[in-house]
Parts: sequence; C-alpha cells; structure tokens
Amino acid sequence: MQIGMVGLGKMGGNMAERLRRGGHEVVGYDRDPAVSDVASLKELVERLETPRAVWVMVPAGDPTHATIQELGNLLSAGDIVIDGGNSHYVDDQKHGAELGGRGIGFVDCGVSGGVWGLQNGYALMVGGEKSDIERLMPVFETLKPEQDGFVHAGKIGAGHFAKMVHNGIEYGMMQAFAEGWELLEASDVVTDVPGAFKSWRHGTVIRSWLLDLLVRALDEDPALEELRGYAQDSGEGRWTVQAAVDHAVPLPVITASLYARFASRQDDSPAMKVVAALRNQFGGHAVSAKEGQVAKGADAPGADVEPPAEATRPGR
Amino acid sequence: MQIGMVGLGKMGGNMAERLRRGGHEVVGYDRDPAVSDVASLKELVERLETPRAVWVMVPAGDPTHATIQELGNLLSAGDIVIDGGNSHYVDDQKHGAELGGRGIGFVDCGVSGGVWGLQNGYALMVGGEKSDIERLMPVFETLKPEQDGFVHAGKIGAGHFAKMVHNGIEYGMMQAFAEGWELLEASDVVTDVPGAFKSWRHGTVIRSWLLDLLVRALDEDPALEELRGYAQDSGEGRWTVQAAVDHAVPLPVITASLYARFASRQDDSPAMKVVAALRNQFGGHAVSAKEGQVAKGADAPGADVEPPAEATRPGR
Amino acid sequence: MQIGMVGLGKMGGNMAERLRRGGHEVVGYDRDPAVSDVASLKELVERLETPRAVWVMVPAGDPTHATIQELGNLLSAGDIVIDGGNSHYVDDQKHGAELGGRGIGFVDCGVSGGVWGLQNGYALMVGGEKSDIERLMPVFETLKPEQDGFVHAGKIGAGHFAKMVHNGIEYGMMQAFAEGWELLEASDVVTDVPGAFKSWRHGTVIRSWLLDLLVRALDEDPALEELRGYAQDSGEGRWTVQAAVDHAVPLPVITASLYARFASRQDDSPAMKVVAALRNQFGGHAVSAKEGQVAKGADAPGADVEPPAEATRPGR
Amino acid sequence: MQIGMVGLGKMGGNMAERLRRGGHEVVGYDRDPAVSDVASLKELVERLETPRAVWVMVPAGDPTHATIQELGNLLSAGDIVIDGGNSHYVDDQKHGAELGGRGIGFVDCGVSGGVWGLQNGYALMVGGEKSDIERLMPVFETLKPEQDGFVHAGKIGAGHFAKMVHNGIEYGMMQAFAEGWELLEASDVVTDVPGAFKSWRHGTVIRSWLLDLLVRALDEDPALEELRGYAQDSGEGRWTVQAAVDHAVPLPVITASLYARFASRQDDSPAMKVVAALRNQFGGHAVSAKEGQVAKGADAPGADVEPPAEATRPGR
Repeated sequence: MQIGMVGLGKMGGNMAERLRRGGHEVVGYDRDPAVSDVASLKELVERLETPRAVWVMVPAGDPTHATIQELGNLLSAGDIVIDGGNSHYVDDQKHGAELGGRGIGFVDCGVSGGVWGLQNGYALMVGGEKSDIERLMPVFETLKPEQDGFVHAGKIGAGHFAKMVHNGIEYGMMQAFAEGWELLEASDVVTDVPGAFKSWRHGTVIRSWLLDLLVRALDEDPALEELRGYAQDSGEGRWTVQAAVDHAVPLPVITASLYARFASRQDDSPAMKVVAALRNQFGGHAVSAKEGQVAKGADAPGADVEPPAEATRPGR
Repeated sequence: MQIGMVGLGKMGGNMAERLRRGGHEVVGYDRDPAVSDVASLKELVERLETPRAVWVMVPAGDPTHATIQELGNLLSAGDIVIDGGNSHYVDDQKHGAELGGRGIGFVDCGVSGGVWGLQNGYALMVGGEKSDIERLMPVFETLKPEQDGFVHAGKIGAGHFAKMVHNGIEYGMMQAFAEGWELLEASDVVTDVPGAFKSWRHGTVIRSWLLDLLVRALDEDPALEELRGYAQDSGEGRWTVQAAVDHAVPLPVITASLYARFASRQDDSPAMKVVAALRNQFGGHAVSAKEGQVAKGADAPGADVEPPAEATRPGR
Repeated sequence: MQIGMVGLGKMGGNMAERLRRGGHEVVGYDRDPAVSDVASLKELVERLETPRAVWVMVPAGDPTHATIQELGNLLSAGDIVIDGGNSHYVDDQKHGAELGGRGIGFVDCGVSGGVWGLQNGYALMVGGEKSDIERLMPVFETLKPEQDGFVHAGKIGAGHFAKMVHNGIEYGMMQAFAEGWELLEASDVVTDVPGAFKSWRHGTVIRSWLLDLLVRALDEDPALEELRGYAQDSGEGRWTVQAAVDHAVPLPVITASLYARFASRQDDSPAMKVVAALRNQFGGHAVSAKEGQVAKGADAPGADVEPPAEATRPGR
Repeated sequence: MQIGMVGLGKMGGNMAERLRRGGHEVVGYDRDPAVSDVASLKELVERLETPRAVWVMVPAGDPTHATIQELGNLLSAGDIVIDGGNSHYVDDQKHGAELGGRGIGFVDCGVSGGVWGLQNGYALMVGGEKSDIERLMPVFETLKPEQDGFVHAGKIGAGHFAKMVHNGIEYGMMQAFAEGWELLEASDVVTDVPGAFKSWRHGTVIRSWLLDLLVRALDEDPALEELRGYAQDSGEGRWTVQAAVDHAVPLPVITASLYARFASRQDDSPAMKVVAALRNQFGGHAVSAKEGQVAKGADAPGADVEPPAEATRPGR
C-alpha cells in the first residue's frame, strides 16, 4: 500500500527501506533535503492518495507533537496518523483526541528492533481503533519479524504503554546480569568470569539475547576495563516508574534499576554526605579525621579516611 | 570412562542415563533398591576401578555432607569426588579440605538443565584443581549441551558460586517480567496482555527462554487466574544475598526479588501493621475506625476500612 | 492582623482558633453554615480590608483549584492568597502564575502538626516572594510552635515541596521501624518486643516522636493483633517519588516504603503469580500440584500447596 | 555491688566511671597497664569475691571470643560473664553454651549511648536467664538513663539481637533523611535547605535526635561541601540483613540503606559497567563513542561521553 513516512533517520530510513523491499510505495519526508522525497509536509500530504496513512518517526516530545499538529491541519477526515516514535502513552491520548476531533484516525506504535530491524524485522506494539489497524495491516505485516512481533495491545496509548513496559523489563534484566557480574568479580574463588557467562548461553534458565550481547562484550573486553560504570536512562524507564506510582503498582526491581542508573551518573552521592555527616556527629565534636571528609591534596581520595568509632562501639 | 553416581532421582537418574547413552560405564547407587545397581556405597566403591570418580547427586546440606563423609572413609588417595548437587560454596571448601587431607580430589559442579537436560544437555559450572577436571572432561563433555554449557570457573567452590549467581540473576529476571505483567494488567488502555508478551518473543531486547515460558503459561491461563501470588525461594537466592553482604556488593534487584518471594508467603505483612498503628496514632485517641483494624465478620476485608485523616490533612 | 480563612474543618478550624487566641481577627468561610462567619467567598472578600490576606485550607486538587480560581476573580491587586493545603508544588506554580497575572500575591505553605497543632503550634514551610511573606509574618509567628517550626524555603512551590519531602522522610522512618518490629517478632530469642522498643526511647540513636507513638501503640496492643497490615498512602509519598524521577535523584528507601504500602493493599500479588507460573513451567507439564495454584475449598489457602522441585534440584 | 570490667577504652572506661560514681566497686583490666587496675585477667578474677560478675567490653569477634574463653577457664560455677560488646547474637549462643557447661552464667548486653553515655546513661538491651539478670540489676540500674533504657529482651542472644535491630532501624532512618536532603538540594524552587530541616525540629512527625544531629551538621557546613558521600558500615547492619534472610523477613528499606553504603565506597560501579556494555552492544559494532568508555586524558570524566542512540530510538 501507499504510506507517507516522516523522519528518515536511522530508524525511519530503515523502516522505509524495509517497506519498499516489501512492495509498498513510500513517500518520505525529512528536514534533510538530501534524503527527502518531498520538500515539505504539505507536499507529502499532497502526494498521497486519500484515504492517506502517514507514519511519524521523529523524536518523542516536542518534535512529535509539532509534526502531529501540523499534519492535523493538512490531512482530511478518514486519513490516519501513526506515531511510531517513543512517545509517552499520555501524549498519545492527547494526540488521538485532537486528531479524532477532525475525523482523522490515530494509531500509536511502539517499535523495537534497532539496527537489526531492517534485516530481521521490527517488533510492533500498536494501540488504536480496530478498523484503523486493520487498514494498516499490510504495513505492519511487512515491518514485523517473520514470527510473532506484532500485537494490537488495546486502545490508543496501549502500543506505547506496552513498549514502555518492555523497556522497564529490559532495565530489570540488564541490572540482574550486571549485579551477577559484580558479585562474580568480587569473589575470590571464581577466576573465569567471562567463561561463566559464556557457559550459560545454552541449557540454562537465563539464556537470552541480553546474555548473548554480554558474552560478546566480554569477548571484546573481558574485565570491562575500557568502560566506566556510567549509564544514561531513556524516557521509558522513568515513565514506567511514574506509571507504576500512578497505578499503585509496586515495581521494586525496575525502579532499583532506574535508580542505579541515576546513581551511576553522580560523581559523589549527595545522600551519602548526609550519612557521613550524621556518623561524624555520633562521635561528638572531638573527632579529628571526619568520615567522608574531603581529603585535600590526596591523590587517592578516601584512602586516608579513617572512619570514626561508632557511637556505640566499645573501645579498648 | 567409568563413574559412580550416588543419587538416582530425577536429576541423578537422567544424568546417569545421558552418560550411558554417551558410552560411559555408570555404576549407580540409590537408597531405593529398585533403581540401584549396588546395595551400598561400600559396594559402589568396590565395583569401581582405581583411580575412581564418584559423582554425588543428592540434596544439599546434611545428605550431601553425610555422603561425602562416608565416601571419604571408603575411597583412596587419587580418587575424585564430584558434588553435583546444589551445595553452598562455603561447604565445598570444607569438603575439599577434608577429602584433600586424605589425598582425594574434590570437584564442585553446579548443574542447570532440569527436566530438559537428558535430551538437551546440562549446563555445567565446575570448580577445583585443573588436573582433576581434566581427568573428568570425558564425563563433562557428554553431559553438557552441544554448544557452550561448560566452564571451569575457578577454585573449589567456584562451580557452586557461579551456579548460585546464575540463580540470583534468574530471580531478578523473573521478577522483572513479573513486574511488567502486573503493570500491564493494571493499565486501562492495554487490553491484550498475553498478546503483548507474545509479540516480544522475536526482534526485541528482552527475548529469552523465560519469556518463552511465560508466553506458554499465559497460553494455558491468560490472566493467571488459576494461580495465587505465592512463590517459594530456593537456597541459592538467599546465599546470593548473603554472599553480597559478605563481599560488600550492592545487589538491589536480586535482593528485591528475594524479598518479594518472602512477602508473597505472608498472609498479612507484620511490618505494615506497624505502619497502620503509627498512622492511627497520628490521629490521636479519638479515632474510631482505625486503619488496618481487623474487620470482624466482614466478607471483604478492608472494604469497610476508612483511613483516618492524615495528621496534616486539612479538613473542610 | 486581619485574615480570611477558607475551610474550617479539623485543620482550618483549629488554625483559625489559634490565630484568634493570638489576637488576630479571623473571618472564616466554610460550606457548612453552622461554622461559617459569612455566607459566601464573595462576602468573605467584602468583609476584609485591603490589602487582603486569604488563607485557603481545603482539600488539595480540585477543591483547592476551584477556590483559588474563584478568589482570583474576587480579589484585587495587592491582595495575597495563601494555600495551606497539601497541594502539589507543580500546582502552586500554576496558581502563582494565574494570580500573579492579576497582581495578586501567592504564598504556598506546607503545614505539619495535625491534632496537636492547636495547642503546640504548626510547623510551617512557606514558598513565595519575600515581600509577601514578610507581610504575613504576624500570622506565621502565631501559628508556629514556640521553637523553630518556620522556614521560608524558597520560591513559589518551595513550601509544599519541602512538606512533600518531609512526608517522604516520614515514610522511610515509619518503614524502618516497621521492618525492625517484623524482624524482632520473627526472632525466636527475643520474647519482649514491646519492651525492646520502650527501652530505646532514651539514650539511643533512634529516639524520636515516631518511636514514642509506636511505644504507645504497643502499650495498647502489644502484638498488634487488632490490626491488619494495611496502609493507605497520601499524595505526598507518590509525589516525592515522581519528583525524584523527574530530578534523576535515587530514592531507594522512600520508594520502597511507598511500594510496601501499595503491596499491603493487594489481597494477592499479581507479580508473584507470574513468578509462580514460571516456576511451574520449569518443572514441565507433568507437574501435578502447581505452585501457587488456587486451593479450591481449602480453609487455609496455601497450606496444602507443595512447591514443585526446582528444575535444577537433584532428586534422590 | 562488685564487678570486674574487662576493656577500659572509650566505652568500657566511661561505663566503669559511671558505675563507680553510682557506688559500685569496679575492678578494671585493660591490656594497657596505664589504665588497668590489675596485671592480668587471672589477677582480676582473684580480686573478685564469689559469686563473681565480669563485664567484657572489648571489640566483637576474636577479641571477645578469646576473652570469654580465658574467663571460662578462670571463673567458677555460679559466676556470671556479661558481654557488653557488639557481638553477633549467634556468637552469644555459642558463648552461653560453653560457659553454661561449666555452670557459669552468661548475659549478653547490647549497649547504646556512645560518648554521651557517661553523663546521660546507656540504653541497655539484655538477654539471658532471669535469675542472672536479677543479680545484675544494681549494675544495670546505674548504667541506664533515668527513664526507660533497659529491657530484658529474652533468651541468651536477645540483647544483641535487639541492639542489632536498633542499628538496622538507625540505618533506615539515616538514609531516609539523606534521601530527603538530596531531593531538596536537587530542587530548583527550594533555596534554603538547612532552614527546611531546622523548621522540622518541633511540631512535625519526623522530629528526632537524628534530625537534631543533622541540623547541627548543617549549621557547621550548610551544603556539606566539606564531606564526600562515603560511609562505612558496621557489622550490625550486615547482620541485620543476614538475619532477615535467615528468617525470611523482607527488609527492603534497611537493606537499601546498607547497599547505599556499599555503593558509596566504590569509585566506579562494576555493575553499571555491564549496563554500559550492554547499551553499547545495542548500537552494534559501528558505535564510535561508546557509553561509559574511559575518557583518556579528559579532565572531567564523563563530560565528553555521548550516549549512543537507544536501539529503538527513532532518528531524524
């Protein structure tokens, strides 16, 4: 079928390519004229036959919002907009209502697959009206992997909600592997940590694509010496925790995984300054080498910090 | 090669069978005469040619300890004992020292694979002396899966340490999926939760054997209505957390997963009684319908409990 | 000074009373004519001399929002509105901007003190313009306790932000006591748990008002047998976690405290159904007594549930 | 009454002094002859009249163990040993059994109070036989604060168990304040963070001695700029978590507090290296600036690290 694609970056460009290989006619628009088929969103809309389908694949937040608003002004009743970006499900509901007021359909689509998607297909989680989704099925069939990889998850927002939860689960799984690695590295009996991970790839409960990736990373850098313990978080991790709080659902593991990333980006933990301060207060004002005190001129910070006796520790 | 197998239950029996299919000569002993090749451990030892190899596959703790002690009295210098059970790595170190004092080798082996192991092979994590492990390699080669599935992880104890960490990671991954499911179920936009999980099986970051199992479980019981939220924990989960504390390694996700299992087995949370008690105290003694108060004769406990005003909540 | 008070419930009524005892002239309005000095907000505004000060003490959310909007239409430039309810700091910023556009000042005030406040004073955390707060100081001086109990915490929203964090800390402290109690109760060596808590009231690191309250609760009900482990959460706890996520600040303790309350209100943990389902899958389809399976007709649920063997547990 | 005191350091010395001021006859022994009344444990025992009472106040672990063993050889049936150090309750049970075999009583006593104890008294939690404790009551009465501060918590081990739990609660409370401080500091509306803490000292739910200490610390260093976020943990925190695991009691808050201290002592989080490694793998091998990559020669580590695009992030 014919489809417009807005945003021809790494994701949008590859998806357009996969669609063309699958026999669809894609009219692409990007701010970069070098990759764009048309000069403007207006021209894109004019080039499509009604009823139109326009897939928006631009960064979540303001860019997606602006694109959908502009499309709302250009499209006609009966057309459909698909938001394939990483939007917050709450924004989907707003966009759905806005477009719905003009008779334009809206489908949200969470997409997983990254750089391997062009070849292997993209896992798609979609939300919206059944009739809209049925009209788009030829496109979804081409984009998805050979097996599984597609769900009509529910109402508008359900696609991004499901994708958000997918990413939350991903956070927890990554942190589980990470904690396991740290404990193995701390052990004085285990001497082949990369070998242990490799041994788990077949016949175990934890075999998974993430384990495969980790084995590959350890092949390249067996003790991960080339890396710092520092990780960004994407919006989905935060939204998952906020959705949990909104729905009164306890998510201890996913939240701990998000917080571990927050902490990894701190040079020094503000909270632990307070703990250090309190521990110094226990010892009274006479303590000379305070816990956590900034070591002026020391090369190895912390090396010379002698913790004060606990208030309740018997001396001798 | 020739090997003795002590314990012919679900695991030991299948492992003996896989070894026999692989061309090894297995002499098996079990307390149950119906499945045992010999009448006693003594006879088992007598039937084996020196230097002997005896694989112990009995429950961890006292049974394993008693078996290894008895074998220590029956075997000779140059023989090797393999503990393939779920022993604590700290016990391995004791067993290794005891047998070592008699010139008997000791190898600990964490085994993963369960009921599928007979057919697909068992993932093996072993600890011990290189020379002992080299002698046993024909056995390990037959037991392990076609690909990967074997590591000489380090010193005595390293095999069970690695298996323990494997199980810790497993706890975290299971809980991550569990939290994701709970949040999806709580959503009012997502209507096809089993479909969402199924859609993730290919092309996503979280594809894994556990996801496959969960999809299968949801195929059988889409809303898990036949189950209560109740889960046992195995020793390895607890040992993982205790090893973390011993090694000063923070394991927030694995620990949260263990605690979630503890909590699942409580009819009522003792800790939350204290929170309820404190909240009642905020309101002073005049509060009539106390939070958390046992609803006598109520069908739906909690339904009629009206939380007292927060101390700081403005009335109107 | 003269002040209007909107909302004469438990909190607003007592605060009005404390202000009158302190020599201020309070004109009170409440929907309940029995306690109200005036018939409407309009009459309240007419009764006050310019520049007016109106303290809003109604439930957070829609009631506060509606009240402030109506006041915005009735008041004049130079007047000040104080929101003393439990509003979200984000709402303060909106209210401040709306009123500011009409030249009306806005001060947000987090209030702590509950039923003891009338006698002992209320701790006040305020946010807003310095000039507005200076004008209101006579009122704050009368309301606050003899010692401390007042801070101009920062810009508009800072008062409720500080109160929100106060409540977050409160969650963590309550949960810390609760966990300690549960562990003491689980011990088989400690036989006088209430006595232990009582012994901590003087000379220890954890002496606190919350400990005093807990000792009082245990005096009344030494094993808390009259209570269920069930606790509501107030908005502030959720907002604290959401603010943490927004600010990328890890709050493991406060979040765990909130999640413990969420979990306390579940009859059965949905997440743990997934863990049970996965554990059943480990054992293959032949498992007869499934873990977590609903015990039909059993009086004591769970009592007859035999967990299946772990996939990797050696049998014997 | 007459009592022997072994260990005259900061705690033991002050306790001996408080006992003498209270009219007791204390014979003290310390390895340091300058403060010791006798030359050896043997002489100490000889100087005491039967039935003797000897208070051991030396570091937990080996020193306490050695002292109690030596006293076991020197004392007679009917004598009592009190362990006032920070021993693990599991060790108490061993010591009690060893001494009990010789007819010597054993009482464990958890002590709180630190440097203020000499003046204000020490909170005492004791475990052991009722008859032994009754004999020692004159000593306990003198040591404890005027009000409360004493509990016979249960069997041998109960005193140290209760003290251990006290410290676990202390960890949770400290972390709750610490998290609150960090969130306030991160806010862009709150400008007077020390003022907020000060305002909470009276009339609030969280008023406590720890809050008083924190206000004092903030008086000295309002933004805690002189401290690093680094905190030791004492044995009791670890024992609390291990006891929780042994008793299948979920302790999310206390455990999170312990883990926060572990993490504070890491220059870099090993676990987060794994997360960074996995995130790099998402992007494929073509990623040039890897997340978490060690910035060679950079002054501000991390400053120039550009996170790779998420696998699933749409480009534009």
